[in-house]
Amino acid sequence: MIRVGIVGYGNLGRGVEQSVAQQNDMELVGVFSRRDPKTVETVYETTNVYAMDDILSFQDQVDVLVLCGGSKDDLPVQTPQLAKHFNVVDSFDNHAEIPNHFETVGKEVSETTAIISTGWDPGLFSLQRVMMEAILPVGESYTFWGKGLSQGHSDAVRRVEGVKNGVQYTIPSEPSIERIRNGELVELSTREKHVRECYVVLEEGADAKAVEEAIVTMPNYFEPYDTTVHFITEEELQRDHRAMPHGGFVIRGGKTGRDETSQVMEFSLKLDSNPEFTASALVAYARAAARLAKEGDYGVKTVYDIAPKYIARKSNEAMRRDDL
Amino acid sequence: MIRVGIVGYGNLGRGVEQSVAQQNDMELVGVFSRRDPKTVETVYETTNVYAMDDILSFQDQVDVLVLCGGSKDDLPVQTPQLAKHFNVVDSFDNHAEIPNHFETVGKEVSETTAIISTGWDPGLFSLQRVMMEAILPVGESYTFWGKGLSQGHSDAVRRVEGVKNGVQYTIPSEPSIERIRNGELVELSTREKHVRECYVVLEEGADAKAVEEAIVTMPNYFEPYDTTVHFITEEELQRDHRAMPHGGFVIRGGKTGRDETSQVMEFSLKLDSNPEFTASALVAYARAAARLAKEGDYGVKTVYDIAPKYIARKSNEAMRRDDL
Repeated sequence: MIRVGIVGYGNLGRGVEQSVAQQNDMELVGVFSRRDPKTVETVYETTNVYAMDDILSFQDQVDVLVLCGGSKDDLPVQTPQLAKHFNVVDSFDNHAEIPNHFETVGKEVSETTAIISTGWDPGLFSLQRVMMEAILPVGESYTFWGKGLSQGHSDAVRRVEGVKNGVQYTIPSEPSIERIRNGELVELSTREKHVRECYVVLEEGADAKAVEEAIVTMPNYFEPYDTTVHFITEEELQRDHRAMPHGGFVIRGGKTGRDETSQVMEFSLKLDSNPEFTASALVAYARAAARLAKEGDYGVKTVYDIAPKYIARKSNEAMRRDDL
Repeated sequence: MIRVGIVGYGNLGRGVEQSVAQQNDMELVGVFSRRDPKTVETVYETTNVYAMDDILSFQDQVDVLVLCGGSKDDLPVQTPQLAKHFNVVDSFDNHAEIPNHFETVGKEVSETTAIISTGWDPGLFSLQRVMMEAILPVGESYTFWGKGLSQGHSDAVRRVEGVKNGVQYTIPSEPSIERIRNGELVELSTREKHVRECYVVLEEGADAKAVEEAIVTMPNYFEPYDTTVHFITEEELQRDHRAMPHGGFVIRGGKTGRDETSQVMEFSLKLDSNPEFTASALVAYARAAARLAKEGDYGVKTVYDIAPKYIARKSNEAMRRDDL
């Protein structure tokens, strides 16, 4: 059994708790939290909660830690600190900072294995981008996100005067995806890739027309896109917009051979819960971290460094027999 | 530069010749053929053709051989023989025999690297099946093939009395795929997964009704499916049905968490030339074989054993910066 610890307990941590419960080769040691353990309500009653300050005393009881803190403030500090003492995986997703994060973590690991930026983007989508380009070197790759709830854009909507509450969905443009699927190597503007849909609850007496105008003309956030604003009641918002769906597509249109034959590869996700799926990817890579460490393959790594057999529960023999 | 040799020169070998030309870190040493080299017409005039009997004298000039023979008679003999002396990749695709092939090749390799059963199924599809199940252990995976020209079924059509010529396309059932995309964990019968479409040229005086009946009721080949037969002229067949399109889908519908949240992962290929795409996958894994051998990582391997970075042209730094 691979013994797993969870560090940080928000939506992602709750997802990891539930994902570990689905894996028959893993057991959960517990959740490590900066909050008072007595105040933390876990998904399963049987889950142990420990104080973050005590984590070093668990070195012999944990094979791998899944780090579920935020990429802005938590992981840049926690991943290097904890990777010094534990095998870890994180979902650090500040794309521009990944090379730095890789280096920082790399300086701390010696006899542990740290896999950073797992999850789906970065993570599974990154893997697809690299593999597709390796197989079809002549061509274009495209990444689309959605349909998904965007936290940053929802916040922007809620900051508009007259808005009581609201959410924003990013939606990939179907006509553009169809063109790529048909083998066109298109150049797409921002407007052609995604559309944005807002569901807004107005403050009493607010001017709907003015709110809509303020949203659709907001620079960076909405102005570069075709944005639709729907006005709904608070009840409708609570009833219909509390889930955290997400997803997306990586598509490569390639050309092979002297006659430039069209070849299209596509990978897509349609997720009813973004945090639960991200957690499931983290847990699969946690298996890889624990196994690689057991083989003495230490150091900081990304999804590119991990042979697929390390994330699978199955034996190599079973994979060759059943899946190849 | 990685120096590549091609063994066997049919559609797949021609695809490899063209794929290597697209890779800026590879050069083609030549094609090795059992035919008289003087009679072999290559895609590019500059391609060298050598006699298969001379291949052992090229050991110092070749970093990896791409084996393009057939899975029935060629590869079971060639892969173990050649893997003794060269790094090799093959596309051995007799699924039931893969474990045996793996063992046979494994007995011959000592200081070389052999990656078997690359291509797309087995190969890329196999990889997806394993990775999807690792991430979503609770759920169902489905593989659909097509739209694609099936060689075996086309042969069966052509053997029917009254048929002068013909081709058969396997087509995945869109309604079934839609149900899976919507999160249903469906049980699908053979009939519900694929439909078959035949384009038939009749012999002069043949009875169309009788030919159609003979095709759609043919046991194993067509009886278990919904089959449509179109009658066309020889000219139409030559004009519209000479390409070798193929493709398919691997889809996993999974459930995560206490509430059994629906999550769908999908990988698909839409190929205008099946042999050219298969060749491109082989060439990417040929890069991996050459690199692993250089690192001293010898032995027989499958796609499950290969970390994605080994098939990519890019440096690890560039991947982390640009694709993660």
